[in-house]
Amino acid sequence: MRARVVLDPTLYLVTDTALCGGPDGVLATVRAAVAGGATAVQVRDPRATTRELVALGEALLRDLRGTGVPLIVDDRVDVALAIGADGVHVGQSDLDPVTARRLLGPRAHLGLSVHTPEQAQEASALPPGTVDLLGVGPVLATASKPDAAAPCGLDGLARVCAATPLPCVAIGGVDRADLAAVRAAGAHGIAVVSAICGRPDPGAAAATLRARWREAAA
Amino acid sequence: MRARVVLDPTLYLVTDTALCGGPDGVLATVRAAVAGGATAVQVRDPRATTRELVALGEALLRDLRGTGVPLIVDDRVDVALAIGADGVHVGQSDLDPVTARRLLGPRAHLGLSVHTPEQAQEASALPPGTVDLLGVGPVLATASKPDAAAPCGLDGLARVCAATPLPCVAIGGVDRADLAAVRAAGAHGIAVVSAICGRPDPGAAAATLRARWREAAA
Repeated sequence: MRARVVLDPTLYLVTDTALCGGPDGVLATVRAAVAGGATAVQVRDPRATTRELVALGEALLRDLRGTGVPLIVDDRVDVALAIGADGVHVGQSDLDPVTARRLLGPRAHLGLSVHTPEQAQEASALPPGTVDLLGVGPVLATASKPDAAAPCGLDGLARVCAATPLPCVAIGGVDRADLAAVRAAGAHGIAVVSAICGRPDPGAAAATLRARWREAAA
Repeated sequence: MRARVVLDPTLYLVTDTALCGGPDGVLATVRAAVAGGATAVQVRDPRATTRELVALGEALLRDLRGTGVPLIVDDRVDVALAIGADGVHVGQSDLDPVTARRLLGPRAHLGLSVHTPEQAQEASALPPGTVDLLGVGPVLATASKPDAAAPCGLDGLARVCAATPLPCVAIGGVDRADLAAVRAAGAHGIAVVSAICGRPDPGAAAATLRARWREAAA
């Protein structure tokens, strides 16, 4: 049996096809971001057809081979299984985590978006090995996901992190936040969309975020 | 091992949540249509969240239990696996049929939309048991799927049916077509959306279509 997927949540890039200027832009952005220090990649494109998402995911997997950086698929367990991705990230409107884990098997990484301490407690009360990582946010208001929940702020982030033993990654405007405060709140990393996607130099943007995160530990 | 799902394509209802006035309307429509003679049901709602589609599919499965009428899920192999549906219908923009079959296993029903004789030949050249049924259309122009391909007409339907040994179900405005001509073209049944969804009496609409199809054989 293959080992469970290891995902370092320090700098978790979530792709946005429109912001990147199309699928080729996503590939270029991910290559640059990984070279700059992104530690995990989630492919997200709720507007793509299934076949388009499969094609993009397959191309990303080819590019990421040998980098040690895992590829996670937003929402679509079928697409993840089809392409042999490293895991799936589900939100509160996607497949429930227990069902997603059943379909994915024990090896895959499974992340879950939570917005409140109650949702974090629910996730950690699931059978061990169901959920591997919590995405917590939006911390600040963000333009990348107009339908996102109300921002929870750094206080809210800290309350969620304190409510669960699962590792938490902060998402939503975190590139503008005080990363020392994000780390102090208990987050194990940051997930970003527009802090990298659509930037003139995504690799430099990733490197800067990695450096700021490292400095924030001091 | 459980037997392969049997799907009678004679009157194949494809649901439209908006036309039915919401999920409860879908359930009421399907119950009435099955009582009126619908032989298969496909749940289709590309605007629903995954969780909404799972909830609707689970409710439909409960209602269909014991009727012998299978429930097929449009596009979403993950949702079909999650709820234990009888199969999946994929289009040319969804998972490719070989991958869908691999994920679904041998027992599930797998349908595929085709628009040309070439696509029908491709489907019948796949490994045996990959695709069980072809959806052919749109035969006439239809308001239910504004992004559909150009209508193929009864001539086009006949060309597709002649190009494959797989059973074909005609879709797209077929309630307005001459059903004797649809049968003569080689179709094994008709798939309908707006001929049943949103009608004042979906059960009567289904019964009328069944009767017209039967008469068309004479």
